[in-house]
Amino acid sequence: MAVGRCDFPIMPEIPGIRLGTVCAGIKQTVRDDLLVFEMAEQGSCAAVFTQNAFCAAPVQVARDHLASKPRWLLINSGNANAGTGRQGLQDALTSCELLAQLTGGSAGQVLPFSTGVIGQPLPIDKIGSALPDAVRNLNPASWNKAAKAIMTTDTFPKGVSQTLEIDGRTITFNGIAKGAGMIQPNMATMLSFIGTDAKIGSALLQQCLKRAAELSFNRITVDGDTSTNDALVVMASGLSAAPEILPDSEHYTRFADALLDVCKRLAEAIVRDGEGATKLMRIVVEEAQSDEEAVRVAKTIAHSPLVKTAFFASDPNWGRILAAVGRAGVDNMVLENIRIFLDDVCIVREGGRADDYTEEAGQQVMDREEIRVTVKLGRGDARQEVLTCDFSYDYVRINAEYRT
Amino acid sequence: MAVGRCDFPIMPEIPGIRLGTVCAGIKQTVRDDLLVFEMAEQGSCAAVFTQNAFCAAPVQVARDHLASKPRWLLINSGNANAGTGRQGLQDALTSCELLAQLTGGSAGQVLPFSTGVIGQPLPIDKIGSALPDAVRNLNPASWNKAAKAIMTTDTFPKGVSQTLEIDGRTITFNGIAKGAGMIQPNMATMLSFIGTDAKIGSALLQQCLKRAAELSFNRITVDGDTSTNDALVVMASGLSAAPEILPDSEHYTRFADALLDVCKRLAEAIVRDGEGATKLMRIVVEEAQSDEEAVRVAKTIAHSPLVKTAFFASDPNWGRILAAVGRAGVDNMVLENIRIFLDDVCIVREGGRADDYTEEAGQQVMDREEIRVTVKLGRGDARQEVLTCDFSYDYVRINAEYRT
Repeated sequence: MAVGRCDFPIMPEIPGIRLGTVCAGIKQTVRDDLLVFEMAEQGSCAAVFTQNAFCAAPVQVARDHLASKPRWLLINSGNANAGTGRQGLQDALTSCELLAQLTGGSAGQVLPFSTGVIGQPLPIDKIGSALPDAVRNLNPASWNKAAKAIMTTDTFPKGVSQTLEIDGRTITFNGIAKGAGMIQPNMATMLSFIGTDAKIGSALLQQCLKRAAELSFNRITVDGDTSTNDALVVMASGLSAAPEILPDSEHYTRFADALLDVCKRLAEAIVRDGEGATKLMRIVVEEAQSDEEAVRVAKTIAHSPLVKTAFFASDPNWGRILAAVGRAGVDNMVLENIRIFLDDVCIVREGGRADDYTEEAGQQVMDREEIRVTVKLGRGDARQEVLTCDFSYDYVRINAEYRT
Repeated sequence: MAVGRCDFPIMPEIPGIRLGTVCAGIKQTVRDDLLVFEMAEQGSCAAVFTQNAFCAAPVQVARDHLASKPRWLLINSGNANAGTGRQGLQDALTSCELLAQLTGGSAGQVLPFSTGVIGQPLPIDKIGSALPDAVRNLNPASWNKAAKAIMTTDTFPKGVSQTLEIDGRTITFNGIAKGAGMIQPNMATMLSFIGTDAKIGSALLQQCLKRAAELSFNRITVDGDTSTNDALVVMASGLSAAPEILPDSEHYTRFADALLDVCKRLAEAIVRDGEGATKLMRIVVEEAQSDEEAVRVAKTIAHSPLVKTAFFASDPNWGRILAAVGRAGVDNMVLENIRIFLDDVCIVREGGRADDYTEEAGQQVMDREEIRVTVKLGRGDARQEVLTCDFSYDYVRINAEYRT
């Protein structure tokens, strides 16, 4: 169950980046669940991580290793290695060492990532046994296989490919992501890995990535639960013939926007695959006093179980939207200035149902699979968007059954 | 579907308080949906209201009228008169005037309340036609009928009766409440009306009520949605033979605690009847640095759809609880100091699953209908409780079907 077309794109190879997958049998034995991501020596790497105070062991290790010019990512699905105490931290470090032994690098150059069940010990023996095959399988074409290997409750692999021309030379971006539940990224995201052949320094890459995460992954929510394992990584191999991206240049702006675009498309794919989702809702808040205020109102709507179940029922229940705006904690809002639109249909004006609104017009919008809800606050010029999905029987089923 | 036994108690009459109900046919025609609550002239009244910025028309009117020594409450179910603009405000005022004409009081002495669908015009004609019968029906015994008349998606009427002895004289409290969804009261509650024969000044009564609301209704949540219509009212007729309750007295402390107890029991009844609820969860946060911090952590757990669906599945999924604590926005939490208990079973210690924890012991607790989740933060001495319920298929069904 996913909203809209979610085909995996054709992804070109990216010079300097190779991927290897294998089935380590971590939680199941029918598909690949281990991914090694390798970048050429001259590349740079940037990453942002979950702000959950109890971040998982691999996140702690990856954060430490980020400063030592990482060249490898080691990602497993089926086990989050979160809530696993000191042993979990040791297991994450051990996995880095095992990969380093196989590649000739150092453990500090490996960033580990885990996703899946919380609180179970990481089966480090299985990972150790499978790693040699993953390294043997390294090749530049395995983006689709990689996207599949990191899936948990996802119903489709998520990938985005995009190019940017600079001075007649091409920079390519490939990105993959996973995530369907426990989704309200905070300064980071679900697991998402982006490769590019751009030439760019680590500090500048980190700056681009932070902005991109804030305006993409930090603007989606499935259920308001921020994961312990969220991470977004970009590896830039530097092998494109395009000139190096330098600060405060026009190239920088274009590179940053391209990276943001890749992140936005990956983030949207996660919402389309939100657990039990039948509808994609784009919550747009306009005329706010600040971006922060706009995001706050949009997220309050996007988190409301009452709004989300109404959308599941295709019910144009604007009263629930209005109630959510009202409890968003914004001071001095004036009810009479609020307008609410479902796509282009104005449904609320001057504190109540718009005079020209008809249930038929509202119903026609609600029957669509993708709906834009626009709330105009009449207080300023700020505008922000948050993407979310509806709340269905299947959300309850998936989360009641998972782990059992 | 409700958790535990929810019998309506035998409620004694309260001197100076009469109730009259009638079926006005506001949304349906099979049961009473209009309630008039009348208090003797010498009584005092206190009320707290929703903090939703877009509070409904009747809430705005009730707030205005609170200063004019109210003697009547006029409550309808089936229509919230919220999101109804200027006409809604006019309708709320008109309903007060209609009741005043029948009773010989003034419109300012009537507090109006509405609950039900948001955004539909209040059928003021139906209310006007039914009011004379409601007034004719006024009598001191109709507490059960009154509790039924204010129900919407509630599956049982909610009432609490309690007495307090002061100097050998009895003060009686009767309270009724309604509410099952859109429940995260903020400084107030769902509709709840309490009558007592205590003799107490309005200002002092208001002070008692504010504290009681904060520690009872403001500590429950069903779905995190704060209603536009929440209100909690206490009317004290002053006809008890017990001495007047005066500030800073031992009597005051005992009266305030009794009122708090009534509020807590009514609030718990609302959670037991939470939409689709199959389990009652008492989230206790201990060893916090402040009450505010404890409430914040408890509410984050109580709002997590992942925690709530795990409880629905009777799954001791402590990883989801730990993840919720971690995203509660408390600075400098130390994972290793956290302990989590399901009833008396310790499930998390030192950052991971407790050594002596067994799935059998956890499962045994989770199979119960009422479960206490205790989180010890290891940071201080503050302790707070929040009550909530699980998240089931029926929550989705009820809210997808409601209004259609």
